[in-house]
Amino acid sequence: MSLKNAFYAQSGGVTAVINATACGLIETARQYPDHIGKVYAGRNGIIGALLEELIDTSQETDEAIAGLRHTPAGAFGSCRYKLRGLDDNKVEYERLIQIFEAHNIGYFFYNGGGDSQDTAYKVSQLSVKMGYPITCVGIPKTVDNDLPGTDSCPGFGSVAKYVAVSIREAGMDLASMAETSTKVFVLEVMGRNAGWIAAATGLASEVEGDPPHIILFPEIPYDEERFLDRVRECEDRYGYCVVVAAEGLRDTDGKFVSEIGSKDPFGHTQLGGVAQIIARTCKNAYGYKYHYAVADYLQRSARHIASRTDVEHAYALGKAAVNLAVQGKSAIMPGIVRTSDDPYTWEIGTAALSEVANAERGLPADFIGADGYSITPVARRYLLPLIQGEDYPPYRGGLPSYVRLKNALVPPILNTPFRLR
Amino acid sequence: MSLKNAFYAQSGGVTAVINATACGLIETARQYPDHIGKVYAGRNGIIGALLEELIDTSQETDEAIAGLRHTPAGAFGSCRYKLRGLDDNKVEYERLIQIFEAHNIGYFFYNGGGDSQDTAYKVSQLSVKMGYPITCVGIPKTVDNDLPGTDSCPGFGSVAKYVAVSIREAGMDLASMAETSTKVFVLEVMGRNAGWIAAATGLASEVEGDPPHIILFPEIPYDEERFLDRVRECEDRYGYCVVVAAEGLRDTDGKFVSEIGSKDPFGHTQLGGVAQIIARTCKNAYGYKYHYAVADYLQRSARHIASRTDVEHAYALGKAAVNLAVQGKSAIMPGIVRTSDDPYTWEIGTAALSEVANAERGLPADFIGADGYSITPVARRYLLPLIQGEDYPPYRGGLPSYVRLKNALVPPILNTPFRLR
Repeated sequence: MSLKNAFYAQSGGVTAVINATACGLIETARQYPDHIGKVYAGRNGIIGALLEELIDTSQETDEAIAGLRHTPAGAFGSCRYKLRGLDDNKVEYERLIQIFEAHNIGYFFYNGGGDSQDTAYKVSQLSVKMGYPITCVGIPKTVDNDLPGTDSCPGFGSVAKYVAVSIREAGMDLASMAETSTKVFVLEVMGRNAGWIAAATGLASEVEGDPPHIILFPEIPYDEERFLDRVRECEDRYGYCVVVAAEGLRDTDGKFVSEIGSKDPFGHTQLGGVAQIIARTCKNAYGYKYHYAVADYLQRSARHIASRTDVEHAYALGKAAVNLAVQGKSAIMPGIVRTSDDPYTWEIGTAALSEVANAERGLPADFIGADGYSITPVARRYLLPLIQGEDYPPYRGGLPSYVRLKNALVPPILNTPFRLR
Repeated sequence: MSLKNAFYAQSGGVTAVINATACGLIETARQYPDHIGKVYAGRNGIIGALLEELIDTSQETDEAIAGLRHTPAGAFGSCRYKLRGLDDNKVEYERLIQIFEAHNIGYFFYNGGGDSQDTAYKVSQLSVKMGYPITCVGIPKTVDNDLPGTDSCPGFGSVAKYVAVSIREAGMDLASMAETSTKVFVLEVMGRNAGWIAAATGLASEVEGDPPHIILFPEIPYDEERFLDRVRECEDRYGYCVVVAAEGLRDTDGKFVSEIGSKDPFGHTQLGGVAQIIARTCKNAYGYKYHYAVADYLQRSARHIASRTDVEHAYALGKAAVNLAVQGKSAIMPGIVRTSDDPYTWEIGTAALSEVANAERGLPADFIGADGYSITPVARRYLLPLIQGEDYPPYRGGLPSYVRLKNALVPPILNTPFRLR
């Protein structure tokens, strides 16, 4: 039997450190020339496999692959494309197996969130049924930090660091100006369903009065009256008020605040992002001058301020995935196991894909303070280790020098058309 | 005659490096114990002088003052409070002189933009007339980079670096995802009247096709149809489109786009920030999935990614201000004189406050590309040196360790009420 190649794909929203996982995986695979042939990466994730667009990573130099460790976003492209259930859409799974067979692929590494772990699990099952065994290893990745089977998800720690640093800096700006100018500042952060990222901003507050003063979690229904009371209280006490709002904030009826908008003084509805709506609400109630920021993609791509811990996790998980595969482990996902909070220590563990697939880990209730606007010491103890350490990329000409890969495609073998849904 | 004290105030919007100027100023003043007594800082800028709220910086340790070099925002507080013309409001100028006299202040250092240089100039004139001579030195500061009398303004280089780094990172994110997800990303940057900051994002583009693909300058009237054509062209060519929009973007009638809003498919007006409006316009025209970010205060407070060149400028100007004052120079502002683009070299020059006061330096027309959406090589040659070098703050517990001063107030001597306008 000839040496089997490996297929690796990045899936879903990219992060500042998903390429560090690719780096760990490819560098480790290159250390097993007797076990693994070439590593092919899916162009734009799993659709690269479906369309037979495979990137031949063996054409990249060791230096280029090493550079992935400090390069944000998805070097091979990613996609939002969830394979449906086997019964609904078996043709896609069969296509994958055909492609893998054609390109002599014996290892399937899928780097993503819950959906991706589900896909990896299904592929592992189907391949056995179809008589084409393939070793399937999922690798965690998501800024949402909502995967079970791992203490934290690569990508989250760097977002956490970015938002905590940013709110500290912006808070200092506001404190400087509040006497005669802006009194309310709102930062909108990611988090549609869970407040992991919003919670991380709380790390910036070390002393009573430090921003952020109010964190609006998606888990806590937004009560405008109660919120406005608290804003006034902050203004009275500190002279200003710094607010963090998760994009997925909902009102007491369960509706997204971003879809409801705010009322102007004439009662007209004004739509906008959550941050803008919240900020306007303060202005309308008290006349406070406001500013707001929307971090959006800046927060998840900010490799320039990545957490070293996060980068190390990401790299180690890529490495572990290959080691597991070489040991013949399949339908598995390596994860981070925390062995101590302080000093923070961790090791690599594993979880069965069947247990990780499609599951979601919410923010624990005991992470949110009794007031609903802050984080608890328990949350702090969990979050703080994840933002430890800096891992600056090299700079050239004043800007981060990120790697550009060749991304040369493997000549197609099947060369048959395939229509994506 | 007893040793004269100095008064220093921070004015207007704060920056990532205005405290580096304070650091240079106070450290240098401490080297002239025979010329300068204590340095008093205005609490919240010039209103600290008017209200006799003077911070005694002599109570801060050398270590704390050294820490100002890496601490963003205004350590003593700043304000938006413009002293009006002498004829309109002589009482404020007289009050300043009274305070200065009471506290034996012989040096007036005013760290700000055009308005502040104007105030410093007026104080220099009035003090002579009122028989209380005081040495008045203005020190440039503004992220808007619009002061004459200096090649660049401290604060601008760091914002330039932040926005260029951010657009590179977010652009890579978009490139990774565009095949199946977001196709248009808009970053809103500061710049009400001039496109200096918007122009700086152009530095991130080094190779044809690099983001940002479209820069919307406040100098170029926004023509929606032409813009949409360009967006489509980018999408065709690169698969996605990264746009930068200056907050002060105006339409062909000279109206702020942020005040006009966009039309939804039903013809209803939707208000929002510029970024949101521009992004929605792309969605409405082509159905593209969009994301947008609003950097707001994050861009000007981002000391974590400050330009080393900018920090060095800021420090050197604080130092130069003291050296000029000790030499008896008054009604003057030290500035940056560029002596070479590449390699970049610079020295300190001076300008008369009378020439700097209330003047504004716009973005030169030859900085904007013929298409109105890009920057020229001339702009690049000017901008590139300003973002050179990194100057990371120290970190503690995963977060930047910024200085907190004691900010002890000097006991009032006049102790008379004064009503601010």
